[in-house]
Amino acid sequence: MKRPLAVVLVSGGLDSCVTAAVAAQEHDVAFLHVKYGQRTESREEKAFFDLCEHFRPKFRLVTEVPALKAIGGSALTDTKLSVPEEEPDPERIPITYVPFRNAHFLCVAVSWAEVIGAEKIFIGANQVDFSGYPDCRRSFFDAFERTIEEGTRPETHIRIETPLINLTKPEIVRLGVQLGAPFHLTWSCYQNEKVACGRCESCRLRLKAFSEAGLEDPIPYEESL
Amino acid sequence: MKRPLAVVLVSGGLDSCVTAAVAAQEHDVAFLHVKYGQRTESREEKAFFDLCEHFRPKFRLVTEVPALKAIGGSALTDTKLSVPEEEPDPERIPITYVPFRNAHFLCVAVSWAEVIGAEKIFIGANQVDFSGYPDCRRSFFDAFERTIEEGTRPETHIRIETPLINLTKPEIVRLGVQLGAPFHLTWSCYQNEKVACGRCESCRLRLKAFSEAGLEDPIPYEESL
Repeated sequence: MKRPLAVVLVSGGLDSCVTAAVAAQEHDVAFLHVKYGQRTESREEKAFFDLCEHFRPKFRLVTEVPALKAIGGSALTDTKLSVPEEEPDPERIPITYVPFRNAHFLCVAVSWAEVIGAEKIFIGANQVDFSGYPDCRRSFFDAFERTIEEGTRPETHIRIETPLINLTKPEIVRLGVQLGAPFHLTWSCYQNEKVACGRCESCRLRLKAFSEAGLEDPIPYEESL
Repeated sequence: MKRPLAVVLVSGGLDSCVTAAVAAQEHDVAFLHVKYGQRTESREEKAFFDLCEHFRPKFRLVTEVPALKAIGGSALTDTKLSVPEEEPDPERIPITYVPFRNAHFLCVAVSWAEVIGAEKIFIGANQVDFSGYPDCRRSFFDAFERTIEEGTRPETHIRIETPLINLTKPEIVRLGVQLGAPFHLTWSCYQNEKVACGRCESCRLRLKAFSEAGLEDPIPYEESL
């Protein structure tokens, strides 16, 4: 039986790796990687290609959104702003928030899905153990789905699947283990491209996730940790 | 008194020129031009800079969305597909539809607006005398506004202004005349970059607009017309 086709946004991080494993269970997959001039762009792209080697998607597309770096306003795209190492304030949107970033990624996914005939887009966003980014909440994806219905051909219907949205980080790690997700191929660090720093927001969340799941993170971290 | 700041999407065509004139009445303006590998990209960019010379916006940004050409699926971005010269079938989405294009443009506008502190985005979309593109209807912009509310900082509120949405093409031309819009600087042709073809969908709509408004289009067309 023919399997339905789904676009999967694959940044190369832990969450997108688990999301890809979920999507691949019941779909033919089209892997999409969007570069946006972020600090660790090359390392994330390498993780994407490594994940492609593992999952062997039916289609793959690497593209970029140069506007986000041109616009700046985030420590991820503007190297004049530092990536914080302290615990984030849960009341504030962190400086690593890239304005409306996930909307850009979804736009590319929608245009591609409409042309290749995919009816679902998978994204590994998470609103539980997350950094407080507004564009990671299910209410954002619900509004975006409505926008897709209004802004594409009448015969186009595309759902946004967020299988990790209500999982805690340790639950995501455990789900990945259960599905055989290749964690050793992923990259999460916001700061470095060679050895993960272990101190930025993203490394902290990741290390906490493995630790709480009672597992060891297979990627190397700076010795100073 | 300080005027509010508005981002204006300026393609360089007739509608965006009139929209810019509307926006400039009561706002400081930030002009945004997005290239997407369309056939007449260079000519449209020139029109943008000519319009900047005229309007003198407070900020200007030229960027690109390379994904749309990579994805294709439209006669505007895929030169293997021809731009039709016959009258379009009103029951079908034309082949010049670029999948979800306006959503990409709005994403750039939102990210920029959030960083520079603009509370409005002006776009010259029109759902009356238009080509039948789904992403030119007000229902699409309403859904997008909701997505902006959900996907940006809690203190960010951005409205999408579509001053031409319910005007006919001759009404748009008359409004432009009234506001002193510099039509001679604009470019609408989908096909050519030197002299407008006069036969593609976009030229037809434009010529019809001037003709019905009882005015002469100030830009040159191919002699064969």
